[in-house]
Amino acid sequence: MKISIVRNILEVNESAARENRERLDRAGVVAVNITSAPGSGKTSLLEATVPGLSLEGMCAVIVGDLQTSRDAERIAVLGVESVQINTEGGCHLTASQVSAALDRLDLDGLSFIFIENIGNMVCPAGFDLGEHARVAMLSVPEGDDKIGKYPTLFQPADVIVLNKTDLIGVLDYDLNRVTDDLGRVNTRAPFLRMSVKTGEGIEAWLAWLRGLKV
Amino acid sequence: MKISIVRNILEVNESAARENRERLDRAGVVAVNITSAPGSGKTSLLEATVPGLSLEGMCAVIVGDLQTSRDAERIAVLGVESVQINTEGGCHLTASQVSAALDRLDLDGLSFIFIENIGNMVCPAGFDLGEHARVAMLSVPEGDDKIGKYPTLFQPADVIVLNKTDLIGVLDYDLNRVTDDLGRVNTRAPFLRMSVKTGEGIEAWLAWLRGLKV
Repeated sequence: MKISIVRNILEVNESAARENRERLDRAGVVAVNITSAPGSGKTSLLEATVPGLSLEGMCAVIVGDLQTSRDAERIAVLGVESVQINTEGGCHLTASQVSAALDRLDLDGLSFIFIENIGNMVCPAGFDLGEHARVAMLSVPEGDDKIGKYPTLFQPADVIVLNKTDLIGVLDYDLNRVTDDLGRVNTRAPFLRMSVKTGEGIEAWLAWLRGLKV
Repeated sequence: MKISIVRNILEVNESAARENRERLDRAGVVAVNITSAPGSGKTSLLEATVPGLSLEGMCAVIVGDLQTSRDAERIAVLGVESVQINTEGGCHLTASQVSAALDRLDLDGLSFIFIENIGNMVCPAGFDLGEHARVAMLSVPEGDDKIGKYPTLFQPADVIVLNKTDLIGVLDYDLNRVTDDLGRVNTRAPFLRMSVKTGEGIEAWLAWLRGLKV
């Protein structure tokens, strides 16, 4: 009984995700789903990405948040449209929520939609939102054990971003441990070391995004 | 229908939590449920707590983890018994899981049980595990907006710990923003600034724990 409910939720989500992807394909828009723990730097990454690819007016951001609109306010400053999804306690976005957000956007003229998921290393993993690529982000201060401990987030990722590398020297961070874990969890996705603060890795990230363009 | 299922899960949990608390009360053991995002320092806090209160052999740790036993291994080194709960993808511990863990512990002679919840700022909030006190922890590198963004974690907490304060100077961290948010979310719980690394705030934390003793 329990299993059938879970299956049903996932089936409904898969079907909505498929529809989202078809709709985005028709409009020629690439959707990127960004997942991470709280505070890894998802919004900061977008703050570097929009000017980095000159995406002002050419991309939109769908932001999931429990209650506030703080991230959406940071996005608005960038000169791109954003849609805020308040999940009211929900621990991940669903494809149906993204579908409703797409209804509120004019897809014509957009090249990218970035979906900033709820800050959570567990729940967003199993929910396809209809994206074309998924980013799993972690940051140095979270500790070097996180890929081993939360593998389900990193397994389906198309790119893995390690942010806040400027803190590697300050903290007792073992990069080898991270790459060892990654060798067991996901060898397919590029692994980008990044510091949004210093700019390290931003060029590689922008190049990866450019490669997604249809 | 959906709502009734959710209610049912929470009712089952509440009942198991009540039983856990009664069982712990009878044994004279104080249970502390520690919640935070991944990598805020829950295990490190326990590494400072056990020697700090000379709890070797006198406390036990129940550790929730998705897959690995890494935290349990770190705990074992401290000379205290630990029970690992692998949730296999579940995003929070439940009172029933804690009940099963209690079955595996000899409660006689213990003064404390620390429950290290899954690293997650959303899901553990709504689940009483039968603890006597709940800790909500955050850390400086996660950013100064987290209490406002994840209020449900901080509202029910009996103490709020801000860890990694040694990084306040390194990062662009606005402590006033945190205390402002806290003023709206939880004015009841003490707010402890802490650096497990430098030792700042550890004495205040140990004093708070001593105050829980029956």
